[in-house]
Amino acid sequence: MRVRKKPWADDFINDHQEFIVLEPQQLQGKWQERFAKDQPLAVEIGTGKGQFITEMAKKYPNINFIGIELQTSVIAVALRKLVENPLPNVQLVLTDGADVNEIFATGEVDRIYLNFSDPWPKKRHAKRRLTSPQFLKGYQMVLNPTGDVEFKTDNRGLFEYSLGSFNNYGLVFDDVYLDLHRSEANEDNVETEYEQKFSAKGPIYKLVAHFKTEN
Amino acid sequence: MRVRKKPWADDFINDHQEFIVLEPQQLQGKWQERFAKDQPLAVEIGTGKGQFITEMAKKYPNINFIGIELQTSVIAVALRKLVENPLPNVQLVLTDGADVNEIFATGEVDRIYLNFSDPWPKKRHAKRRLTSPQFLKGYQMVLNPTGDVEFKTDNRGLFEYSLGSFNNYGLVFDDVYLDLHRSEANEDNVETEYEQKFSAKGPIYKLVAHFKTEN
Repeated sequence: MRVRKKPWADDFINDHQEFIVLEPQQLQGKWQERFAKDQPLAVEIGTGKGQFITEMAKKYPNINFIGIELQTSVIAVALRKLVENPLPNVQLVLTDGADVNEIFATGEVDRIYLNFSDPWPKKRHAKRRLTSPQFLKGYQMVLNPTGDVEFKTDNRGLFEYSLGSFNNYGLVFDDVYLDLHRSEANEDNVETEYEQKFSAKGPIYKLVAHFKTEN
Repeated sequence: MRVRKKPWADDFINDHQEFIVLEPQQLQGKWQERFAKDQPLAVEIGTGKGQFITEMAKKYPNINFIGIELQTSVIAVALRKLVENPLPNVQLVLTDGADVNEIFATGEVDRIYLNFSDPWPKKRHAKRRLTSPQFLKGYQMVLNPTGDVEFKTDNRGLFEYSLGSFNNYGLVFDDVYLDLHRSEANEDNVETEYEQKFSAKGPIYKLVAHFKTEN
């Protein structure tokens, strides 16, 4: 998602470090310290303007949520939501692309959300897709043995690729939805901004999967 | 697929046993004897009126094709196609539900095609779906180590189920198409009667997968 540069963003982020972490590597293994309560940890990678993570945090107060985002001017919008309506179980992370396993310790995370990730449609960019093997390896390291990955997209090519990539890596599928909004799972679905805007154009795909514990 | 009973079917089948096998168990391990040439063996389970298998046989003369079908009045139509346009690399099998591993020997088959199988949408009928674990076990037994399964359907629920079922069984995905007719693979696609008729209503899904050889 590209947005215009927001001049206020840098200052706003610096002023509200109670909700946003700028040096996440320093918290590796001790993320619970950033939250009011010690409870399961869910991480959204590519949290955008934060609608999903703030709605989830309201709906599931017994889970701690971390939203990671690369773009300053995007995460600033998510941060503004939090400043206006503080939530004790959300933290944002601004990072310019640190690997997930540099941010979290082994087994520190209970669930990873990938929502409408950049499809990188060109084959030569496949490695940049957040569902490519190199990224899956990172998720496997930071997820605890009962953890899982929830992946949503409206991009057919990315979903086709990801079904293959997850399968080939050895992940076990728990649920597959080829038209989430017309499935029985939709009543529990929390939409992202993008999803709300574009789902009329075609189906939303969703995959829930976990890593095998034995090797 | 239900069709009206065709009174001519029984006699026609009995008169043309050069193209149709009525006691397939007796050929277990020696199917190549039924063909002009000894060459790779592909099996379509649920061959219907035979458009797919006869088109495939024309397109790939170096592969032997076997079409299995349960319904007399349906397979009789496929048989009529063969009688009118004989092909040396097609054999039909009429069977009332014998397991695939009672028909073929271990490793005798190179590819299995499942095309627009009955979706059995009710959960309590899941075991009857041709992509359920019990059936996959049979395919695994009769396929040789380099063999694969090609599965096409327009039924979203069946495809969702099958992605999970194949994955959970340990099959390795080679290709996934969520809209086959709008993919680059479409130029090689051979359509079934059903596919030709109903594909305008929604996407055709396709999965190609193989069993892991190591255990």
